[in-house]
Amino acid sequence: MNSRTDNQDLITLAHGNGGRHMRELIEQVFLRALGNQAPDAHLDAGALPSHSGALMITTDSFIVQPLEFPGGNIGSLAVHGSFNDLAVSGAEPLALSLNVIIEEGLPIALLERVAAALAEAAGHVPVICADTKVVPRGEGGGLYLATTAVGYQARDATLPPMGLAAISPGDRLLVSGPVGDHGTAVMLAREEFGLSGDLKSDTACVLALTRALRDLPELRFMRDPTRGGLANVCHEIANATGLGVRLSQSAIPISDPTRAVCEILGFDPLYLACEGRVVAVVAENIAEEALRRWQALELGQDAAIIGEITEARRHAPVSLITELGGERILMELEDDPLPRIC
Amino acid sequence: MNSRTDNQDLITLAHGNGGRHMRELIEQVFLRALGNQAPDAHLDAGALPSHSGALMITTDSFIVQPLEFPGGNIGSLAVHGSFNDLAVSGAEPLALSLNVIIEEGLPIALLERVAAALAEAAGHVPVICADTKVVPRGEGGGLYLATTAVGYQARDATLPPMGLAAISPGDRLLVSGPVGDHGTAVMLAREEFGLSGDLKSDTACVLALTRALRDLPELRFMRDPTRGGLANVCHEIANATGLGVRLSQSAIPISDPTRAVCEILGFDPLYLACEGRVVAVVAENIAEEALRRWQALELGQDAAIIGEITEARRHAPVSLITELGGERILMELEDDPLPRIC
Repeated sequence: MNSRTDNQDLITLAHGNGGRHMRELIEQVFLRALGNQAPDAHLDAGALPSHSGALMITTDSFIVQPLEFPGGNIGSLAVHGSFNDLAVSGAEPLALSLNVIIEEGLPIALLERVAAALAEAAGHVPVICADTKVVPRGEGGGLYLATTAVGYQARDATLPPMGLAAISPGDRLLVSGPVGDHGTAVMLAREEFGLSGDLKSDTACVLALTRALRDLPELRFMRDPTRGGLANVCHEIANATGLGVRLSQSAIPISDPTRAVCEILGFDPLYLACEGRVVAVVAENIAEEALRRWQALELGQDAAIIGEITEARRHAPVSLITELGGERILMELEDDPLPRIC
Repeated sequence: MNSRTDNQDLITLAHGNGGRHMRELIEQVFLRALGNQAPDAHLDAGALPSHSGALMITTDSFIVQPLEFPGGNIGSLAVHGSFNDLAVSGAEPLALSLNVIIEEGLPIALLERVAAALAEAAGHVPVICADTKVVPRGEGGGLYLATTAVGYQARDATLPPMGLAAISPGDRLLVSGPVGDHGTAVMLAREEFGLSGDLKSDTACVLALTRALRDLPELRFMRDPTRGGLANVCHEIANATGLGVRLSQSAIPISDPTRAVCEILGFDPLYLACEGRVVAVVAENIAEEALRRWQALELGQDAAIIGEITEARRHAPVSLITELGGERILMELEDDPLPRIC
């Protein structure tokens, strides 16, 4: 490979300088991948598609390392992350805005794979505005993305914005599938432990899961257990309601590869990020119905009822009934044990 | 200063790990600066304030170096950049989303100054969702921001989204003030030429300027001349319409400090970024009225009619009538001569 080829294959500062190289990069990588879903490059601001229902907006930055991992890459992760925040709020995505900060030297082929995954994850939802910057070598982590998603409150959604306030003792907790796969997969991809095997990230859009529950009148709350995992969502619930959360260890789905890796490395999967799961709190009388609805979906076939809301328990707001019948307090996480998983 | 104090004064990776340190940083820096305009930290997605008119959305990333410069910092720049893209589209800002990517080691005092400038620039417009990440030393440029602004098409705005299509030969070009101050000020702050003097960035919100013109029925087009400056906007107009743009050198306002610095360093201020100016194209018969309206505003007191639209001129789509009466072709910029000015 000669140096001319090298230059064509890697991002240079010229790709960020507002001129022809930048226009060509955007056209050949992002506009090609996005097709009809791409923004109009002539406009400073894009118009939102027509909609009904109150508008919701959510934003996230993505600094995951490595940029690619089994099951996805930073592009699919960025779209799923934003769509999922809308989904658990009872909303449907309407449009996406995209910021791309590229470090000089990034292989263009990698950028193409990211753009393709991003476009596939966005599906029919248009990217209506975007911005690309290139930073010098040594001032970026290869690629950072920021996505802002605008959505509308679905007509059938009964979920109030502060659904947390409706949570009562006796309510049940459900999770839509095995926990901790994303955090474990990214850690393995980063650390090269040689343990990868069948493990892959759960990164996925959870809209099918939230659509399935959101017309249930006694659905209280939904949240995607990302940073800090299932344990963190339980602490959010306990902190916001003043009530307790008691989980049943034997009921919590954990995939075999994640369980094996966590045992070897000493991680607790309850604290590891998911990027394609939903935790829901529902009234006891609809818990079985909610479970059936989730299990009927491909993404929810391993869903389970994993615990319940209790009266306030000041010294053990979140606890786990172990398989041996003991009770273990789940502490609040001070720091993410696996940073840069999103 | 002992090391304990040092640690408290600089961003560490722990500030990005989702735990207590991160919560405290966000509360003490961003929520404090934003006051009532801050997002609700309990919600994954914020609701947009009520509005009328079609919604517009725009996004930008900011990697300016240095992070602070005479006249502003990356915080004010990020808000102005997003609001101005809405403003020139005939829209009013409704809400802002904010992404903050901080490099380990950034002084927290600097972050506080950025947050304060950002909050002041946002004014009454709420930041309804936000995300903060910390990247390891050597993987960021101190601080990157990405802002997405949602706005609504103002009721009095006659500006169609594709106002470019209405541009005709004989139309006049106006600029709202001196060009090139932002690019020159950032370059001087970066390069430490010892030439600073009175020079400061023009970074400002241009809403007052766009509000003043947007009900004029024969307003064709507005654009903020950022990267690539005035010359780049003229090429955008020429490229999109197939018509020519002829500027009058003696009419173009350029501040004395910017003129002096550009002469010494060999830069052309017509190609340097502004961050608080508007270029407007209007029908000839309303050009004087548009000029009067701008000159009545503090931000527009140096506004001028600087040129006109001509029939197509294939080999000289954008040209400048010099002070000596000659004609100079303004070439299309291949690369930004001063990268990282926004």
